[in-house]
Amino acid sequence: MAKSNLDLVNECDSFPYYQSDPQLYLTSISTYYQLRVESHDYPLGYVLPSVAEIFRGLPNWTLDDDEPTLTLTGGQNEEERSAIVAQTCLAMKATGHFKVLEKWRNELYPVYGTNRELLFNVERCASPLFGIVSYGIHLTAYVRTKEGELKIWIPRRAKTKQTYGGMLDNAVAGGIASGESPFESLVRECAEEASLSGELVRERAKACGTVTYFYIRDQNAGGETGLLQPECQYIYDLELPEDVVPKPGDDEVEEFYLMDVNEVQEALKKAEFKPNCALVQLDFFIRHGILTSEEERDYIEIVSRLHRRLEFPTL
Amino acid sequence: MAKSNLDLVNECDSFPYYQSDPQLYLTSISTYYQLRVESHDYPLGYVLPSVAEIFRGLPNWTLDDDEPTLTLTGGQNEEERSAIVAQTCLAMKATGHFKVLEKWRNELYPVYGTNRELLFNVERCASPLFGIVSYGIHLTAYVRTKEGELKIWIPRRAKTKQTYGGMLDNAVAGGIASGESPFESLVRECAEEASLSGELVRERAKACGTVTYFYIRDQNAGGETGLLQPECQYIYDLELPEDVVPKPGDDEVEEFYLMDVNEVQEALKKAEFKPNCALVQLDFFIRHGILTSEEERDYIEIVSRLHRRLEFPTL
Repeated sequence: MAKSNLDLVNECDSFPYYQSDPQLYLTSISTYYQLRVESHDYPLGYVLPSVAEIFRGLPNWTLDDDEPTLTLTGGQNEEERSAIVAQTCLAMKATGHFKVLEKWRNELYPVYGTNRELLFNVERCASPLFGIVSYGIHLTAYVRTKEGELKIWIPRRAKTKQTYGGMLDNAVAGGIASGESPFESLVRECAEEASLSGELVRERAKACGTVTYFYIRDQNAGGETGLLQPECQYIYDLELPEDVVPKPGDDEVEEFYLMDVNEVQEALKKAEFKPNCALVQLDFFIRHGILTSEEERDYIEIVSRLHRRLEFPTL
Repeated sequence: MAKSNLDLVNECDSFPYYQSDPQLYLTSISTYYQLRVESHDYPLGYVLPSVAEIFRGLPNWTLDDDEPTLTLTGGQNEEERSAIVAQTCLAMKATGHFKVLEKWRNELYPVYGTNRELLFNVERCASPLFGIVSYGIHLTAYVRTKEGELKIWIPRRAKTKQTYGGMLDNAVAGGIASGESPFESLVRECAEEASLSGELVRERAKACGTVTYFYIRDQNAGGETGLLQPECQYIYDLELPEDVVPKPGDDEVEEFYLMDVNEVQEALKKAEFKPNCALVQLDFFIRHGILTSEEERDYIEIVSRLHRRLEFPTL
């Protein structure tokens, strides 16, 4: 059955809202352990009970079943905390207990406090175990033909990719490593994923806001289901000259298609896009006057949901 | 003192968030009466106790101090409900009790249910008494000079205007009357406020999403303070040819300035803009890559707050 645009949003922004259903929201969060750092009195993420259980009795961690909270008690500063978290994650990986840890990346993601200070870093693949906010960049590359038509460069993910293999993607997308700025991350990913030169990207790419949502991982994400994944994607548009053709820079992308707006809309309806890429396409269509309130009955709801205010500190 | 961009957002989006401060949020909403329509089991707005008190004992209305709720019990359909609401508002106006009712507009605002059905209409100036969502359009008109510089047409409100007199505004802004589509409202207001032809607006204006926020009316809004005003503004961009100059079409606007980006940013810092127009300018700067995450420390928070998910049904 054809998916509505709101269906696409619901798939990614699947965590309940207090205002829509206080009971469901409160029941949900009361089952999770709030991730905390000692002497910082607020949640940094939500941890499933099945995950929190692993921390029981571990040095440097305290599990409180009443609150419920999982608190990192060891470490006095970012460096010490990061070292403890790394040690814990490596130990968890060694047990082979968590499937998500099998995709170890050797890439660190940051966790910030309310003053935007870096509290600690954590291995990328472990972030959904902690339910912390992760940051990425998404770029939509498009051309305006001589006839004035807007066409969008859409890559297909390699069928061999472990997650979302064979699905459609945004021209460039990737996670932002700790210490990297969104724009520098964009420049790096544009070279790696689409063979676009740094010079071109620096001259033409335009920041256009963020898309934020709170995802409950399902079977499509791979690994354990039910893990919490609040995400913030920094959004960029890049209008390319007609003679610049993005080329896969690695084996993660099969090929790039130049699609017109109708083709992208049809692919969205058929759920051919990786779910969070569908959200970025909707945001693009809304900002460019392609999807309007006159034709989309869920317009107001969709615009708000694409910009969810996350309940954890962000950068 | 110079206002930060987040200060500007906080001024308009002043209603608390459950996720930031559950206690403050719950204390706030427990003091308000939920506006309801009989056999529709959800709030349509929040009513101050001092306003709700006026409805005690009125036919067609039921005040429940325990919930607390103010329910429109009379009327079986939109027409009947609208007639009752009109009658009630006229009676309230006649008592002279509420200052906001002195600015009677003879213009109806819609109130929708969860199935996007029109439940009733209400006189525009009475809407903050009911705390219902109101809808408007805001247009940013800009030019790109031959040198490639972006400049923005900014009007100054007439000093004689009752509210926000002498402050800076968006090129075109206005409320959407019941039954009017956002785009038709835009075309009408563009003619009235900026003398822009319907032909030009239909050809060039581009829908770019919504800006939504939840305002607690303060002394600047005029009339009673503390009234609740959740708002949804449909946002449009209009790139004008250099030879088209917007002209005030009525006596509400003093004159139009063609400002460069720095001038607009300076005026924002000095709080020279009408507060909700400042939010629309920030949204414009974010979508156009003028305000970026590299220079705005509150970027993520601001983008989310400009697109608040309102807790009442919307169109």
